[in-house]
Amino acid sequence: MAFDQTYAAYVDSVEQALELYLPLPRDAWPETGIPSALAEAMRYSLLAGGKRLRPVLLLASHDMLLNEEASVLPFAAAVEMIHTYSLIHDDLPAMDNDDLRRGRPTSHKAFGEAAAILAGDALLNLAYEVMARSRHPRAIEALAVIAGAAGSSGMIAGQSADIWMESRTPDAGMLAYIHRHKTADLISAPVVAGMILAGADERLVERGREYGLRLGLAFQIVDDLLDEMGDEEKMGKRLRKDRSAGKLTWPGIYGMEGAKQEARAQINLALEALAPFGEKADFLTALAQNSLTRVV
Amino acid sequence: MAFDQTYAAYVDSVEQALELYLPLPRDAWPETGIPSALAEAMRYSLLAGGKRLRPVLLLASHDMLLNEEASVLPFAAAVEMIHTYSLIHDDLPAMDNDDLRRGRPTSHKAFGEAAAILAGDALLNLAYEVMARSRHPRAIEALAVIAGAAGSSGMIAGQSADIWMESRTPDAGMLAYIHRHKTADLISAPVVAGMILAGADERLVERGREYGLRLGLAFQIVDDLLDEMGDEEKMGKRLRKDRSAGKLTWPGIYGMEGAKQEARAQINLALEALAPFGEKADFLTALAQNSLTRVV
Repeated sequence: MAFDQTYAAYVDSVEQALELYLPLPRDAWPETGIPSALAEAMRYSLLAGGKRLRPVLLLASHDMLLNEEASVLPFAAAVEMIHTYSLIHDDLPAMDNDDLRRGRPTSHKAFGEAAAILAGDALLNLAYEVMARSRHPRAIEALAVIAGAAGSSGMIAGQSADIWMESRTPDAGMLAYIHRHKTADLISAPVVAGMILAGADERLVERGREYGLRLGLAFQIVDDLLDEMGDEEKMGKRLRKDRSAGKLTWPGIYGMEGAKQEARAQINLALEALAPFGEKADFLTALAQNSLTRVV
Repeated sequence: MAFDQTYAAYVDSVEQALELYLPLPRDAWPETGIPSALAEAMRYSLLAGGKRLRPVLLLASHDMLLNEEASVLPFAAAVEMIHTYSLIHDDLPAMDNDDLRRGRPTSHKAFGEAAAILAGDALLNLAYEVMARSRHPRAIEALAVIAGAAGSSGMIAGQSADIWMESRTPDAGMLAYIHRHKTADLISAPVVAGMILAGADERLVERGREYGLRLGLAFQIVDDLLDEMGDEEKMGKRLRKDRSAGKLTWPGIYGMEGAKQEARAQINLALEALAPFGEKADFLTALAQNSLTRVV
């Protein structure tokens, strides 16, 4: 299958899994079900489309080694739930204060702040519940990897640094820390988890981790570049906000050309990491290469 | 050992476990460690004392059946982390908007709203990471129980109902739903998890679930009563706020005497559930009986 068709097939599987695990809004509570507003807010953000990059990475990494997609769908759904919760909380007035996400009002604009906080909390919890109920024999190892990448030494460390770096001298080291943790950790984790769930040995898992981290750093640099180059209406969100908030970006430190070079360098390292997988890595190779096409 | 000494010994174990799992604030980040403000906010709320009721219930339930406390400390710490994250988020301006918790400024008053949101998120994540890394052979079952009780069909359903019930006709059914989910689910879950971790059969686990739910409902009624009867300075938080916000409470529906009767009835049901455990349940029996002494 061509890359685009394979990607679309993975996305289809992810969408079905998300629908399966999400609660339904019911009119009948408190007798049965949960408050409709909570279920609606969870569905609104999780079913808003998007690239589904993280779950696709999990499915594709697993697929390289073992053809048992159904057994890992709970983990693919879980990483997307965690990604979505982080966006909901990031958008809150006390955080980035964004009104628009994927061309629609952000959760707190659509449902109010309390609902947005609780919907984010609920998606984070649901991610862990879905993984724990998966009955996969390696569930606990994969869950540990994802929790580590999402938590206070992973994504949340990056979010915190992003918010509080204004009070410190911003430099390239700080920027690398933020990109690594805020973005790359939760792009690397699904690759690692997919391989662990397939029973890969530590040497291969380490290559997957390297691929994911390099890809994640490249994605963040590309995101910074698109933020400078992009069209707000087309992108469905407010742009050039980081710069106006005095936040550090890769183009801000290295210039547009330097940032493009760095993105290419990271993608080359990502591709090198895939060497031991040979042809099986064709999809992950194409995914990494395609990530640059929007900016170079 | 007398009840108070046993309780204090459990609390000691819990405090040590919490300290062990919490990140330390370091000046050296981004080179090593995590942003100090994140670590400080996590520590501030989690190490603020409190009864540690939920982890004590987990340790005591496990202890009834198996004397291997060290192996379940990660789970005890995790339920307290989840409880604490829920308090931090509940206190936020968009939620209950409370300035005081256990006699100290709430997290968002001490660290700002962004830090409070992220510290709550981080504690929730850390709870799952600590359980996943426990290496306990029954970790995944216990984690699933705790996630179910904390999530969108458990505690968060109760929080949501509590916030949005103003828009519906409040009645006794709604109040029962809120108490059951907002409070009792996360009091029952550690009892169930403690027993599952000890390898208890389904019949005993069911008794534990019933004990925890009844105890949790009684606790919430007692809390409502203390809210009416209490002294703000002594309690370290704002009181009679639910009533002034037009929220439903047990005394509000059934009167003070009716609420006391209901608390006693729930405690009697909790004690009945412990019958199969005989003398081994002495501690849980005393805990349930003592919960009433502050109000009757």
